[in-house]
Amino acid sequence: MQMFQKSLIASMLVTATLSVQAMTQWEALPTEPPIPADNPQTEAKVTLGKALFFDPRLSKNGTISCNSCHNVMAGGDDNRPNSVGVNDQRGGRGAPTVWNAAFLSVQFWDGREPTLEAQAKGPVTNPIEMGMPDWEATMQRLSQIAGYKPLFESAFGKNAMTADNAAKAIAAYERTLITPNSAYDRYAKGDEKALTEQQTKGLNTFAEVGCTACHSGPNFSGPMQAMGTGFFMKFPLMPGSDYDAKYKLLEDTGRYTVTKKEADKNVWRVPTLRNVALTAPYFHNGQVATLNEAVKIMGKTQLGKNLTDNQISDIVAFLNALTGDFPEQTMPRLPSTVNTTLIPLVEK
Amino acid sequence: MQMFQKSLIASMLVTATLSVQAMTQWEALPTEPPIPADNPQTEAKVTLGKALFFDPRLSKNGTISCNSCHNVMAGGDDNRPNSVGVNDQRGGRGAPTVWNAAFLSVQFWDGREPTLEAQAKGPVTNPIEMGMPDWEATMQRLSQIAGYKPLFESAFGKNAMTADNAAKAIAAYERTLITPNSAYDRYAKGDEKALTEQQTKGLNTFAEVGCTACHSGPNFSGPMQAMGTGFFMKFPLMPGSDYDAKYKLLEDTGRYTVTKKEADKNVWRVPTLRNVALTAPYFHNGQVATLNEAVKIMGKTQLGKNLTDNQISDIVAFLNALTGDFPEQTMPRLPSTVNTTLIPLVEK
Repeated sequence: MQMFQKSLIASMLVTATLSVQAMTQWEALPTEPPIPADNPQTEAKVTLGKALFFDPRLSKNGTISCNSCHNVMAGGDDNRPNSVGVNDQRGGRGAPTVWNAAFLSVQFWDGREPTLEAQAKGPVTNPIEMGMPDWEATMQRLSQIAGYKPLFESAFGKNAMTADNAAKAIAAYERTLITPNSAYDRYAKGDEKALTEQQTKGLNTFAEVGCTACHSGPNFSGPMQAMGTGFFMKFPLMPGSDYDAKYKLLEDTGRYTVTKKEADKNVWRVPTLRNVALTAPYFHNGQVATLNEAVKIMGKTQLGKNLTDNQISDIVAFLNALTGDFPEQTMPRLPSTVNTTLIPLVEK
Repeated sequence: MQMFQKSLIASMLVTATLSVQAMTQWEALPTEPPIPADNPQTEAKVTLGKALFFDPRLSKNGTISCNSCHNVMAGGDDNRPNSVGVNDQRGGRGAPTVWNAAFLSVQFWDGREPTLEAQAKGPVTNPIEMGMPDWEATMQRLSQIAGYKPLFESAFGKNAMTADNAAKAIAAYERTLITPNSAYDRYAKGDEKALTEQQTKGLNTFAEVGCTACHSGPNFSGPMQAMGTGFFMKFPLMPGSDYDAKYKLLEDTGRYTVTKKEADKNVWRVPTLRNVALTAPYFHNGQVATLNEAVKIMGKTQLGKNLTDNQISDIVAFLNALTGDFPEQTMPRLPSTVNTTLIPLVEK
């Protein structure tokens, strides 16, 4: 009788699993991200954009490049709770990964910019990030680096050294930063052996407990939508747990800082889970060091569930199957200011 | 009569030029730098060394890598008067270029280390540079990055995760950082058309006025010598000019800080002039913004000569012929700490 019950329960569980499984569309990462009509990809743009992305002269004192915080040799971030800007300044938020950011329909943790082009302009002139006074001064500086002129001309034609074009080039480079062919992607394309047993269990648990409510779509950041749309969620959705204080989850009001709408308090762009195993620490403020703890918190604050240790381990195993192939890249050559430097010898 | 005198003088000058030319051995950069017997080059070492060179986790707060100050995507330095270490700290000296450093017989501005291996260990534990407490802590951190173990094993065999091996790998990578085939090198190998007319004039002036007394050899950093030997010169050799105060030339006593010998006051390792056009600002303290001014100062303080504007322009033109070919490099992939971070969430 006990045996019968157990097997009945097991069979019910299998049925439940299968039906959730059947409901969940597992999508592989597209080979190309969305490309805006006014910024088609070209090799010349990507070449320029890569140089700009790595060029620390886009910062006030020549020390911080885009790559300083969005390290493409690693997981596309800096593995820090917050990033370090010029003169050791810190913001309250961690650097989101630049890998697969091209699949997000809005940018920044609070979704305040609709495109990678718009995003690219932000950190350069943010006083606590790269600290340039404005884009006029930035382009003035770039115009003194002789080697940039031919790169801009090759990408955009004559008289092309504008902030808009710099941002377009950086965005074009970032659209090459995609990581296909993860174990998950091979699974989604039909290779059932691509995932380990535990990863398969984790994939099912991930769907069953409800993670896919937000982390859906091929980028696990919500459904694919038109650029500028945004896919947001409140976090913590169910405040009141010990985590709120322990990890200061409510201190930053997220999207509210942009819209000033009450409904946007503690609302955030749903982040991608691709390569999430490589991008600790976690959440907007980087206060959670491990992926295990992050999954546990998500269960509690977003789903109202006390996930078991086994569930957490399985989900983490599955999330590790979202680590993709990082394309081999050549280093850019940064054009020089021959016989002189642009970086002020005396700092203000 | 006046005509005759002029032509006599001209003919004397030509003779003088030819004889200095004949005396000066113009040597092209060797294709391989000196390699120490106990650290032969291997591909596995270079691969590991490149990852370590670019890894900001070799710094206390995960923000500074070797490449932060010795940027191999540029001239191998940071184009700053001094470098910015962890927590915005500054030293008094500029970062020397890492390109062709393999041809120097001692390392650091004051020549305090005999090899690239010994040099590589310095900045990591320097409190104002990368700020790790010691190499034990550094290797402890690296040992927590699973992907480093196979890289060390592949390079050095089992149980190979030691500070000495990390330094050897970084040095092996740095020995790949050489820039052959400059216009000057092609000239030295017999292509008389490799230099422009002005560069040829500059080369002759460079020898005639005496720059080659120190900036000799294929690396323009003195004769090739056994590792650890060192080739030093006092700077300013003839103090007393206005430059001493204007550029604070006497504030840092150079090699004296290492040896405490009176004779070593204001003595420095003779730096390479290869790619010098790309590595402004100039001198140990980076207080001179342009190469023109640097050449002018050298004439005055080292040779006791007021070089003319034409002489300076010609020498600068020649120095620009020392910019070599930078080999295309692939970016390293930095091994990850899966599901966690090593960077302290709370900083001390």
